[in-house]
Amino acid sequence: MNKKKISIAVIKRLPRYYRYLYDLLKLGITRISSKELSERMNITASQIRQDLNCFGGFGQQGYGYNVESLFNEISNILGVNETFHTIIVGAGHMGQALANYGNFEKRGFKVVGIFDVNPAVVGTAINGIEVLHIDKLDEFIKQNKVDIGILTVPYDQTPAVADRLARLGVKGLWNFSPMDLELEHDVVIENVHLSDSLMVLGYKLNEMRNRNKSKN
Amino acid sequence: MNKKKISIAVIKRLPRYYRYLYDLLKLGITRISSKELSERMNITASQIRQDLNCFGGFGQQGYGYNVESLFNEISNILGVNETFHTIIVGAGHMGQALANYGNFEKRGFKVVGIFDVNPAVVGTAINGIEVLHIDKLDEFIKQNKVDIGILTVPYDQTPAVADRLARLGVKGLWNFSPMDLELEHDVVIENVHLSDSLMVLGYKLNEMRNRNKSKN
Repeated sequence: MNKKKISIAVIKRLPRYYRYLYDLLKLGITRISSKELSERMNITASQIRQDLNCFGGFGQQGYGYNVESLFNEISNILGVNETFHTIIVGAGHMGQALANYGNFEKRGFKVVGIFDVNPAVVGTAINGIEVLHIDKLDEFIKQNKVDIGILTVPYDQTPAVADRLARLGVKGLWNFSPMDLELEHDVVIENVHLSDSLMVLGYKLNEMRNRNKSKN
Repeated sequence: MNKKKISIAVIKRLPRYYRYLYDLLKLGITRISSKELSERMNITASQIRQDLNCFGGFGQQGYGYNVESLFNEISNILGVNETFHTIIVGAGHMGQALANYGNFEKRGFKVVGIFDVNPAVVGTAINGIEVLHIDKLDEFIKQNKVDIGILTVPYDQTPAVADRLARLGVKGLWNFSPMDLELEHDVVIENVHLSDSLMVLGYKLNEMRNRNKSKN
């Protein structure tokens, strides 16, 4: 396939297509028009056609999209059928929650190691995986394939731990500290901003209340 | 202030401005040009001027923005100085992690109740708050101010629990199930898509690897 460079905006929508197509497959729906998909996903049909065109475009005039082949293609692009080995650095509440979240493993993200400094958790097992002291990080990464480091360490320590992982050759970082982590190294980073999402919710709530007040 | 309607794209960037301005304040920086802010935030200066113009625009030619007043204005818009009462429905690993995440309370989001059905957790305390059986949800919401419901229940139960909260008058929902929750009711919803973020990271990682391979 002659691959065009896919823009980051399209990439960010791919998991959403993945989810909707997965649901359609479960419902036994074998084909869907961009119009129907558009109504379900609350995206314009032209946006959908444009997005899906970026990686080949399976839509056929008068037929629509074949749900299964589109789902498979998006799964391949996202690498869902591969296994990414991940380690979690920071076995606090969030680290533990992520270690126990089965959905990630279903998507190909397998937790192979968990690290912390807290003597209360080092040596315990989370979801069957022993928590190792962070002093063992270097050795572990040298001896095991590690694709992604999940950072659930305290805010102040995040840049240093991220830098350490990158120097050890970990190429993907999933950061949970409320900062836009950036590194000099050749790594890819996804920042999860839970507080940002909550603040947007607070804003929308106030805005709705003000709107309702001015109506009355 | 003569408020323009602020677009959702701008709203979504506000927490980011909030974070960067907070850091500037901590560093003792009192004013900043859109150019400097642009370099720090990796947004174009014209985008920054346009965004900040949406709610009054404090920039002055040759002076830039007053960091403190801009920070205060954004805090007010986001409602960070208010208190939102939240309940967590679903005291599994993610619910527990969120209940223990001090950062939310700092931003004005106070957990006032936690609910579950699991007899192993009902009656225990998480971060000082007793987990109540979900049968007590109706009574609790009638007797207490609840602004936001945080949904960390299993996937299949999410729509029903969301609907129940909305019927009880909870106006804001923060959903952690991997679905785009939508309701008929007059509520605002923020969906957190952790798996989507992880899948985007997986994509970027593969893409970087392929790029590096083709270089060699």
